[in-house]
Amino acid sequence: MTNYAMIVSYDGTRYEGWQKQTRTKETIQGKIEDALLQVTGEVCQVNGAGRTDAGVHAKGQCANFRLPFQVPADKLMDELNRALPDDIGIMSLKEAAENFHARFSSSGKRYRYRIRIGSLKNVFERRYVWQLGKPLDVEAMRKAARILEGTHDFTSFTSNRHMKKSAVRTVEEIRLTEEEGELRIDYTGDGFLQNMIRIMTGTLVEIGEGKRSADDLATVLEGKVRAEAGFTAPAAGLTLLRVFYD
Amino acid sequence: MTNYAMIVSYDGTRYEGWQKQTRTKETIQGKIEDALLQVTGEVCQVNGAGRTDAGVHAKGQCANFRLPFQVPADKLMDELNRALPDDIGIMSLKEAAENFHARFSSSGKRYRYRIRIGSLKNVFERRYVWQLGKPLDVEAMRKAARILEGTHDFTSFTSNRHMKKSAVRTVEEIRLTEEEGELRIDYTGDGFLQNMIRIMTGTLVEIGEGKRSADDLATVLEGKVRAEAGFTAPAAGLTLLRVFYD
Repeated sequence: MTNYAMIVSYDGTRYEGWQKQTRTKETIQGKIEDALLQVTGEVCQVNGAGRTDAGVHAKGQCANFRLPFQVPADKLMDELNRALPDDIGIMSLKEAAENFHARFSSSGKRYRYRIRIGSLKNVFERRYVWQLGKPLDVEAMRKAARILEGTHDFTSFTSNRHMKKSAVRTVEEIRLTEEEGELRIDYTGDGFLQNMIRIMTGTLVEIGEGKRSADDLATVLEGKVRAEAGFTAPAAGLTLLRVFYD
Repeated sequence: MTNYAMIVSYDGTRYEGWQKQTRTKETIQGKIEDALLQVTGEVCQVNGAGRTDAGVHAKGQCANFRLPFQVPADKLMDELNRALPDDIGIMSLKEAAENFHARFSSSGKRYRYRIRIGSLKNVFERRYVWQLGKPLDVEAMRKAARILEGTHDFTSFTSNRHMKKSAVRTVEEIRLTEEEGELRIDYTGDGFLQNMIRIMTGTLVEIGEGKRSADDLATVLEGKVRAEAGFTAPAAGLTLLRVFYD
């Protein structure tokens, strides 16, 4: 078997997320597996590094799959791109080491959450940005982000009520930048729980709106109760930017 | 009556163009007039500078309308933006001179046509860029563009077979720039005939593909026969960037 790794971009708007579910649901993984079957005649399982939610986008998702034969990677990429719908693109594809697995080999990920804080509509980016449309106290949000950074039990920040494994994760950096009426929050970490970034974002926005104080956050983390954290920010604002490998 | 002028942005993908037609067709003008009725209670006619085709976008469309009373322009703009769908945005709105008319007062316009010439899919910009996906001889296209610039009878470059008025227009500049796998063609002129930019673009692309020589263009202009020019490039690649007023 030959192992192939690829970088995938997608506009997640019309999909039920990355992970293949029932046959009737439209998923990114499902679409790529369909394209692989069409192009190679092989039924492959495509492993994605991040199982992005319904409506979440990716610029740099990483995925791998195995084929029982070798094919020129450039040609395979071209044919896959032609077979895929125009909201999914393979940006690079190459042979990978035999034991490479997009999810298990990954050492970290970076996600970006985009929020329109200016009053001007941006009609062209509307599918990729949460259209909040009002100013936020970004300094208060930065102060709060410092409390979330580091290694913590993030039970308060996940929608998964049946966590069997540890909810301890390391958030290496939360960086907030303002540009052209938009606030971008870049989250870099070793891994994120289900909905964790959207709940962290919702919580930071409540702080930016003055509805919640940054100092509460340490208590919220310690409490390990989902209801103590803020609301889940909309999926459309979130994009998986990059997956890291050592 | 108070005259108001505004700058409008829209993603034209799902519309039958700017100009209001029958009541069942979705048009930008129709949507803005509906929003004005909802917000002000007045039936207004909205005059747009450029009557963009179905599927064509705008970043800087200019339009005006009259109200029988004065309202704070900022407040009116906010309420219109809330009443409008999220693919149409009013970017600025202010009182205008009594005799200002967005179309008749305009001295020129600039349109941008975007073509993806690189092999990489750009899934996020796919609605605004023609996905050609192969390289073009941009130098040959630049040479051809020099022939189209200037004052000519553009009968060969319009789909309007029943031109009652003159087809003479002045194209001040056609500028080609390449960036990130994309060719951008910016057309600046005093006015453009129906489909004129899309036919000029189709013709330039045929030259860039080597299917047609730049030297033919003078003959095509002189011939005044639509069939002599190239095909009509897809609407999705075209955006009205800016309208000029003296």
